Amino acid sequence: MTEEINFNANEEKQNRKVVKPKPRVQKEKSVKPETQKIAPVKQEENVIKEVKGKGKVKITFLGGVGEIGKNMTAFETDNEMIVVDAGMTFPGEELPGVDAVVPDISYLIANKKKLKAIILTHGHEDHIGALPFVLSDLNVPIYGTRLTLALVENKLREYPKIKAKMVTVKPKNVLRLGDFTIEFIKVSHSIAGSLALCIGTPAGNIIHTGDFKIDFQPIDGEMTDLIRFGELGKHGVSLLMCESTNVCRKGYSMSESNVGKELENIIKAHPDNRLIVATFASNVHRLQQIMNLAEKYKRKIAFTGRSMVNVSEVALKIGELFFDRNNIIDIDKIDKYADSELLILTTGSQGEPMSALTRMAAGEFNKVQIGENDCIIISASPIPGNEKSVYSVINHLFKKGADVIYDELADVHASGHACQEEIKTIHALTKPKFFMPIHGEYRHLKQHKELAMSMGMNARDIILPDLGMQVELTQNYIKQLGFTKAGIRLVDGIGVGDLESSVLRERKQLSEDGFAIAVINVSGTGDVIGDPFVITRGVVYNDEADSFVSDLKTNLQVFMKSLDVENTEPSLLKNEVRKYMSNFIFKRTKRRPMTLAIVLVD
Amino acid sequence: MTEEINFNANEEKQNRKVVKPKPRVQKEKSVKPETQKIAPVKQEENVIKEVKGKGKVKITFLGGVGEIGKNMTAFETDNEMIVVDAGMTFPGEELPGVDAVVPDISYLIANKKKLKAIILTHGHEDHIGALPFVLSDLNVPIYGTRLTLALVENKLREYPKIKAKMVTVKPKNVLRLGDFTIEFIKVSHSIAGSLALCIGTPAGNIIHTGDFKIDFQPIDGEMTDLIRFGELGKHGVSLLMCESTNVCRKGYSMSESNVGKELENIIKAHPDNRLIVATFASNVHRLQQIMNLAEKYKRKIAFTGRSMVNVSEVALKIGELFFDRNNIIDIDKIDKYADSELLILTTGSQGEPMSALTRMAAGEFNKVQIGENDCIIISASPIPGNEKSVYSVINHLFKKGADVIYDELADVHASGHACQEEIKTIHALTKPKFFMPIHGEYRHLKQHKELAMSMGMNARDIILPDLGMQVELTQNYIKQLGFTKAGIRLVDGIGVGDLESSVLRERKQLSEDGFAIAVINVSGTGDVIGDPFVITRGVVYNDEADSFVSDLKTNLQVFMKSLDVENTEPSLLKNEVRKYMSNFIFKRTKRRPMTLAIVLVD
Repeated sequence: MTEEINFNANEEKQNRKVVKPKPRVQKEKSVKPETQKIAPVKQEENVIKEVKGKGKVKITFLGGVGEIGKNMTAFETDNEMIVVDAGMTFPGEELPGVDAVVPDISYLIANKKKLKAIILTHGHEDHIGALPFVLSDLNVPIYGTRLTLALVENKLREYPKIKAKMVTVKPKNVLRLGDFTIEFIKVSHSIAGSLALCIGTPAGNIIHTGDFKIDFQPIDGEMTDLIRFGELGKHGVSLLMCESTNVCRKGYSMSESNVGKELENIIKAHPDNRLIVATFASNVHRLQQIMNLAEKYKRKIAFTGRSMVNVSEVALKIGELFFDRNNIIDIDKIDKYADSELLILTTGSQGEPMSALTRMAAGEFNKVQIGENDCIIISASPIPGNEKSVYSVINHLFKKGADVIYDELADVHASGHACQEEIKTIHALTKPKFFMPIHGEYRHLKQHKELAMSMGMNARDIILPDLGMQVELTQNYIKQLGFTKAGIRLVDGIGVGDLESSVLRERKQLSEDGFAIAVINVSGTGDVIGDPFVITRGVVYNDEADSFVSDLKTNLQVFMKSLDVENTEPSLLKNEVRKYMSNFIFKRTKRRPMTLAIVLVD
Repeated sequence: MTEEINFNANEEKQNRKVVKPKPRVQKEKSVKPETQKIAPVKQEENVIKEVKGKGKVKITFLGGVGEIGKNMTAFETDNEMIVVDAGMTFPGEELPGVDAVVPDISYLIANKKKLKAIILTHGHEDHIGALPFVLSDLNVPIYGTRLTLALVENKLREYPKIKAKMVTVKPKNVLRLGDFTIEFIKVSHSIAGSLALCIGTPAGNIIHTGDFKIDFQPIDGEMTDLIRFGELGKHGVSLLMCESTNVCRKGYSMSESNVGKELENIIKAHPDNRLIVATFASNVHRLQQIMNLAEKYKRKIAFTGRSMVNVSEVALKIGELFFDRNNIIDIDKIDKYADSELLILTTGSQGEPMSALTRMAAGEFNKVQIGENDCIIISASPIPGNEKSVYSVINHLFKKGADVIYDELADVHASGHACQEEIKTIHALTKPKFFMPIHGEYRHLKQHKELAMSMGMNARDIILPDLGMQVELTQNYIKQLGFTKAGIRLVDGIGVGDLESSVLRERKQLSEDGFAIAVINVSGTGDVIGDPFVITRGVVYNDEADSFVSDLKTNLQVFMKSLDVENTEPSLLKNEVRKYMSNFIFKRTKRRPMTLAIVLVD
């Protein structure tokens, strides 16, 4: 007979919840997602004028408040519901082994009959990354600009079972969905095709900025539509929901075109060097500037990194990026060109472990060998949490003799988020009756509230949203209703779990101090048969290990003799052994590994 | 008979090295370290004048180059060796469960007969933190300022077996140690009692800046001794070794006294609030300013956090901090005072998990309950890597209704490290013949080299040091000799291990995907007895677990029947079982836990 003693078995049982793993195929088996046709969006301009609604709207925050990431907000009348964005967050070190964090959408599932649309403000992961998980539960049409939907399509290739209904929209388009009328407003951001929304509702107009900045010299020539924000402000805005990422930064964000000027100076100063530029593939305006400069300075462009190759191709096809295909060479052909004739565009600006630049820095990327004639420009800032990886890549590139230019040394990156004066501009233009700051940790939302109050708003007209909060808006008031179920779901391998899961506590404990397991064979009459059997992993260093394990075995044998094996319940017996081992190990090492005992009774 | 199959057993064996765990007692049993008397330091001024050395000096880098942290450098003639600093580094997430990282001092142990002194530039952990481990191998006198040695003494209380010989020195003191003459030079830094060194050697004068900034309005009234740097420059400096932490930052660092002005503005603006200020306990000049302001604005001071209580007491005793004891109240007595009469000085400015401020933010610190009338000032910047913890504490404090003022919102912190123009000042004053940048990652050292070249130095007169590098200096040249054994040692519980240790690889693997173990009982004739026995931890989520484990058991039984158990070597048998389990688990979960099989043959 064999039996297992569970380490905190009772706790585990209580915490268990049903999870439905989502089927996901291998990346190789790429399939074009099925796109169903639904009614096109009306090409109507400035349809939202006066505010005449007399009803109410319920707003539910499923993500993106009290945190940066996994943005998702639901707007709801008695009859209809729409959702803005469906983003994910990349997990930090507190969630070992977890691939992605997505919002808990129980509330949407419970109200799926009312749900008419998911509207995407832009194509960054924290706005679209949860779509595969949302769409496997909810069959709902998705609206977004061409680039946004192209990126969604790319993502859904890995999930061929999902049939997505996608509708392309453009700035100034108006979408009517029952009680809602949604107007799309052009904004600048670090990805092309970004939108703010004016949502006409029975409670008046709601402006949702999405992520934005005000760039007076945008690369595509189309500025954040300040005029329209002002018009809407004149017609009357009931509620402003404005992003808060950079609300703690004074002044104005730098224009994207400044980055181009700085890049041109660097390129001019390095006429004989091979140029390698790392940036986010989705920042197509950055790509545009770099490719224009390559053309101007007679350099061929080679792409490397999967997303760089994919996104540039997609963006060219849908007209978000313009370049001459004759100027592009395959990364395998770069040896045929002089260093002065080359510009390599690569991924890896965040020091991602498997990215092209990280492998170049480690000397593990056979297509590009870094040498003294390389000038490497990292045209990005480290996202908080990535600093160590990014600087490690920079150090390695320097050690290989290359010149490395990064954001600490030159203006080679501009943030895509509005700073204080830009945010004030939106408040001034829209003059909202009520205000809710969004997209930020609590400290950002708090700071944004203070900014609004410094411009004359009353505290009672501002609500600081939190995860799961539901808010009611009418023409006359805004008020907090309470909280619904919201939170996070963890995507890990092919499973989807929850934060309270014992699996994460176990991994955490294992990562700190490892584990120790003893297997003890006991005869029917209670005698211990043979030596106890001990395995440890991650507990003791090197040569310590041998003597540690043999001492533990010896002591366990002595301890077993002190027990009345024959007359003790197997489960109690195992518990005694486990406690004895824990104490022995702590005394000897000051560590507390996960400890398990297996007692086999013949 | 029982036997274990080792997961990569061969690799482990090859990697094993002998380690000697250092005995360490519990913190409760605090003992005053024995301080032996040795010859006092001469009170002689400006003894180092002309440069007449004609010999050579070997410099060995044991830490602090190619990295920020664990600073340690050895200077050596034919007869003597001295070491500057003995620092530690706090480990990052790449070293799970490790408490501290200290330099590998094999080189010092091999040359212990020559070693005459360890000279400490100041009392920060990255300059003194490795002393307990160094002193347990090397019995060598330690020189430092009063505050530095007081902090060392405090640290050594936990190691009563170590008998430290400590000698207090002051700026302008001169210490003669055989071939070396060491003059101590006053510098400003974010801890009082900081020193630069001028080391007179047979190869001429070497200036080692330690950590420094140039503060024109220092709190103690004593500026970085620019005049002495200039005098030494006039006499002749063979080699400058200058710190590089902030070499990428333009301009000048902010004066510490500016922080005081900003703090005063905040205190004046919050007359009715209770004030809680978090800062580094070792930054006694910051403490001095805060305590002066408390006195000026008629607030009683309460300390909380162990290091705040300890360091303020020590600093008062040795005259590095001045305050009226009558103005201090016990943290347990704060309820007897109005909010407007209180200023609480606390640890936790880095969001450290067990610190006072973190516990206040979590509502788990019964002595101080955070409320709406609290104004909390975090007078520190997050050290890279600590951002998430710090902002999490800030968010929680805001949520409790407190006002939180931190470095992003106000000038409540000044760096202790020189920026570009300050570094240039030292180069200009010392006019060194040769130069080596120290205290920085490779990118900092590289940037510092470029700074020196921009001021007219030749590349051939500059060496970029690296870990283990040995450099020879004479009056005529500086050259790289090669590398000696150097690197890192990991302190973990009571053991000391090395980086290559399998224990870390094991913890890493366990933290990502957990483990799975099968125990299978086989009869002498090769039949499987009873059910296989499977334990997993950290592998599957919640309800997945039951069906997963039972499926794995069933499949293992079927698989076992397919094997010729009787005629297969036990070790091969176990390997087959392990491989089968690994594949089963990966197919089912896309995870790769550590997998072990135990086959028990009766």
